[in-house]
Amino acid sequence: MIVAMQESASEDQIQHVIDQLVQMGFEVHRSTGVRQTVLGGVGAQPDFDVREVEMLPGVQQVHRITSPYKLAGRSFRPEGTVVKFGNGLEIGGKNIVVMAGPCSVESREQLFTVSELIAKAGARVLRGGAFKPRSSPYSFQGLGLEGLKLLRELGKVRKPILLKRGIAATLEELLLSAEYVLSGGNYDIILCERGIRTFETYTRNTMDISAIPIIHKLSHLPMTADPSHGTGRRDKVAPMARASVAAGADALLIEVHHQPDKALSDGAQSLYPEQFAKLMDELRMIAPAVGREIA
Amino acid sequence: MIVAMQESASEDQIQHVIDQLVQMGFEVHRSTGVRQTVLGGVGAQPDFDVREVEMLPGVQQVHRITSPYKLAGRSFRPEGTVVKFGNGLEIGGKNIVVMAGPCSVESREQLFTVSELIAKAGARVLRGGAFKPRSSPYSFQGLGLEGLKLLRELGKVRKPILLKRGIAATLEELLLSAEYVLSGGNYDIILCERGIRTFETYTRNTMDISAIPIIHKLSHLPMTADPSHGTGRRDKVAPMARASVAAGADALLIEVHHQPDKALSDGAQSLYPEQFAKLMDELRMIAPAVGREIA
Amino acid sequence: MIVAMQESASEDQIQHVIDQLVQMGFEVHRSTGVRQTVLGGVGAQPDFDVREVEMLPGVQQVHRITSPYKLAGRSFRPEGTVVKFGNGLEIGGKNIVVMAGPCSVESREQLFTVSELIAKAGARVLRGGAFKPRSSPYSFQGLGLEGLKLLRELGKVRKPILLKRGIAATLEELLLSAEYVLSGGNYDIILCERGIRTFETYTRNTMDISAIPIIHKLSHLPMTADPSHGTGRRDKVAPMARASVAAGADALLIEVHHQPDKALSDGAQSLYPEQFAKLMDELRMIAPAVGREIA
Amino acid sequence: MIVAMQESASEDQIQHVIDQLVQMGFEVHRSTGVRQTVLGGVGAQPDFDVREVEMLPGVQQVHRITSPYKLAGRSFRPEGTVVKFGNGLEIGGKNIVVMAGPCSVESREQLFTVSELIAKAGARVLRGGAFKPRSSPYSFQGLGLEGLKLLRELGKVRKPILLKRGIAATLEELLLSAEYVLSGGNYDIILCERGIRTFETYTRNTMDISAIPIIHKLSHLPMTADPSHGTGRRDKVAPMARASVAAGADALLIEVHHQPDKALSDGAQSLYPEQFAKLMDELRMIAPAVGREIA
Repeated sequence: MIVAMQESASEDQIQHVIDQLVQMGFEVHRSTGVRQTVLGGVGAQPDFDVREVEMLPGVQQVHRITSPYKLAGRSFRPEGTVVKFGNGLEIGGKNIVVMAGPCSVESREQLFTVSELIAKAGARVLRGGAFKPRSSPYSFQGLGLEGLKLLRELGKVRKPILLKRGIAATLEELLLSAEYVLSGGNYDIILCERGIRTFETYTRNTMDISAIPIIHKLSHLPMTADPSHGTGRRDKVAPMARASVAAGADALLIEVHHQPDKALSDGAQSLYPEQFAKLMDELRMIAPAVGREIA
Repeated sequence: MIVAMQESASEDQIQHVIDQLVQMGFEVHRSTGVRQTVLGGVGAQPDFDVREVEMLPGVQQVHRITSPYKLAGRSFRPEGTVVKFGNGLEIGGKNIVVMAGPCSVESREQLFTVSELIAKAGARVLRGGAFKPRSSPYSFQGLGLEGLKLLRELGKVRKPILLKRGIAATLEELLLSAEYVLSGGNYDIILCERGIRTFETYTRNTMDISAIPIIHKLSHLPMTADPSHGTGRRDKVAPMARASVAAGADALLIEVHHQPDKALSDGAQSLYPEQFAKLMDELRMIAPAVGREIA
Repeated sequence: MIVAMQESASEDQIQHVIDQLVQMGFEVHRSTGVRQTVLGGVGAQPDFDVREVEMLPGVQQVHRITSPYKLAGRSFRPEGTVVKFGNGLEIGGKNIVVMAGPCSVESREQLFTVSELIAKAGARVLRGGAFKPRSSPYSFQGLGLEGLKLLRELGKVRKPILLKRGIAATLEELLLSAEYVLSGGNYDIILCERGIRTFETYTRNTMDISAIPIIHKLSHLPMTADPSHGTGRRDKVAPMARASVAAGADALLIEVHHQPDKALSDGAQSLYPEQFAKLMDELRMIAPAVGREIA
Repeated sequence: MIVAMQESASEDQIQHVIDQLVQMGFEVHRSTGVRQTVLGGVGAQPDFDVREVEMLPGVQQVHRITSPYKLAGRSFRPEGTVVKFGNGLEIGGKNIVVMAGPCSVESREQLFTVSELIAKAGARVLRGGAFKPRSSPYSFQGLGLEGLKLLRELGKVRKPILLKRGIAATLEELLLSAEYVLSGGNYDIILCERGIRTFETYTRNTMDISAIPIIHKLSHLPMTADPSHGTGRRDKVAPMARASVAAGADALLIEVHHQPDKALSDGAQSLYPEQFAKLMDELRMIAPAVGREIA
């Protein structure tokens, strides 16, 4: 942690800040310049609240130096994580996986019909039981202990977890969510972008495609995209699915329904089977541009 | 315009709203239901302020029915606009155009070196004089007469105009900007997405890739993307350039510099020549997936 | 519901939309104008998905006319709701209530010390058991059935519910949350503003003071403010508490701690007892300007 | 500037970063820890682009230590700035100034009528010529040289400048705008909050009342509020005007019109004279709570 004192800070104020930092468990290095004093704090607990120091008299700014996540960071596993499923499917490996299915299962017959269409188009059928999907709470600071408990639990789940970015969550918060699950012992985590809330109202959410390369830089976890929820509109799903693959997504989640206009929920964002088959063809053409193939 | 009255609205309030609408030049149709009265207003001036009616006593909600733009709307020219340059270059046609260059011209020598590199990679050199670039004011309501004047002027410019979405502008506002220029008589407008401001702070702006298919649905104008300004970081330019082409962009604007770390401005978002050449190869692989080629 | 068809919509497309609306249970009125056809749909189920109609060929825009909430709307109880507690306390009545306490109870002794200080300053001690606090899920559309269940349960709780606006929730979504609880039979709901997420990063959240008069116009439910969570910083709590009362808040929730720098959680946003006493004096001066007193 | 290197950074990468910093004019201090190396850079030019360093191989994070503004900072003039007008009016002093007037002048008669009403209510008439009002460009980084020129010019204006926060501008960017004007030699700057763009659509903008105490902490410049533009709706102007005074505003700008429903522009946000007179009475009651009076 770096604490920049105000130019007008008195020696008493500086000493008070140093005392507080030492009490919090930091080793403090002081650097006195022509204009201002800067203090460096080394070695404290990770869940330390920066605002406690910002509020002290004479303090101008406080910067956290160490990343608030370790296990989720790229340097923890520079080669990247490949999440493996029982049936041989791998997410995060060489191939891009397209998982498709109806948003909710309405009947045995529907599931059967849709599954056949998806398999025929060359994609994977998304089954409810394969994952434990969970939205990353939008703000860890806001949730506090409750969020911590929720996600420690996920660390004990014995199947891959699909951690979706909350609509108001920064990417750092998404990685913090992952950090909690990892620290609980479950390393099979797949991250997912599915839209954030902005001032633009034409689509329900604004899908943040740049989240894909950013997560790939910051973390070793596979990064996927959900253009169906990310746009909420059938006619925007194909362009955003193509964009996600072009930006480097490891997998896609796509809603398909054999009769979208009769779907019980979210029919407006489900593709017709023929739209999905066309999209699969397009994705097969794009994948080689990022050195990959559709699984 | 549709005015939904509150359930508790009195007959006097309803009559007052009708009188006001008539004074504003509307022809009013009244529909009295079991629970509430709904008024339909037909035929008023386009720059009518919806809030004037929202504020009248007894009014619950007001909806504008007619689109606030006409000339910029898809139905005005369903086949799409192709903007033609003197040198034979076309934007909005079958081919995707990649325009590249340094952010600012520092010397004759620099321009010459960069141009050669760009041409060798198979892209077009972006010359300052080819366009009249202009940011769409973020909010027309906020700018009022000043914005109107600014853009009426652009309508008289005799060269193609590159209208960039403001960082706080909705897509409707971008199209309203275009409407003003079109109404001034200049039909050679190219729209451009280059990032909007959101709560995410990792990148300077959040590039809204979905703007590309949305504009293509709503308007006949060519839609382009500027991943250099859209992300502000060199290492994110290539993924977002690929995503833009995959989402259907008609052209890209990309900053390239032979010595980005010595550039006078925005070097951090300029590509190295070898990065740019590699990107061009990737774009050539993606274009056929959307039925196009790189020009 | 009003459906504005595109100018270019064919008669077949119009008939198809009419058929769909009738199938969805709407009675349809058709109005054919010089430029476009507008359809009015009357009488459908409240949880109807507008996007289903937006997606039909030839449709330009769809507007929901009836408010998506009824029980939470002002016209349901124009005189306003007063929530009464066992101990005679009333929220939403003539007096403004200031509820204060530590964020989390650390010990019997702490609770006793803080309570004494609060009572001495003339405010009410906030006890964990008095309320059932709950954040309104940020997006009902996003939560779907899960959100519905969560809140139907709250309808059966037999104590007042404090429904806090989510950091990404619009005011309409907050009222929709309240609607679910009301429809479950619990009418003792208190709404609360505690900050939304915006691009500004100086404070954790941006407290939306205008939410107070807006909710008072749209709904009969008491509207309160939580400046401690709304700003996250002790030095901003007093100005925002004063602003909330000046804007018409029915109650305030404020964190106070006798030793904020030793608090186990959120100490940075807790007031020192002497700051709180000073604030109470200021609030007593402001309340008469809005025709009220501090309880 | 503090540069935190990645844990996995090689010695070569560290040396390269040090070399670059030295070339940029920094004096570099190196601190090698158990887990990572941290570099401190002292003494560079203020308009240095942090991203240049963030992009270097092996760099984890870069923090700017020195504030990007000096002249606008509180410590430059701890006692605060009082802007004085020719007619004896002072903004930033002990008294709160309420400036009112029509949004645009439609006729001599209108100006006369409105002025009389305003003076009778005890407020100051806002004359077009008293100020040079200007919106702070939302992003200095985005505007670059153009923004710089625009504001250097303002530094030569010989009358007080009212610098309004752009709807997408952070408070730091507002202070950077002020810094440019101050560096040009004009110290008579008044800052103004008038709403930012968020996901909430009920009001045109979301007025950020917390901007008032934040600016007062960070800067010596007077901070004012414009609830008319900040809300865009007449019925929200009075609550937000009261909230602004309660939060510590030095002055208010309020639109008043003797016939708002006949105003040529922005009538929907103009107060009726009797509403304005009532508001003035309320503000007189609130001011003493913040130790002030209405001028």
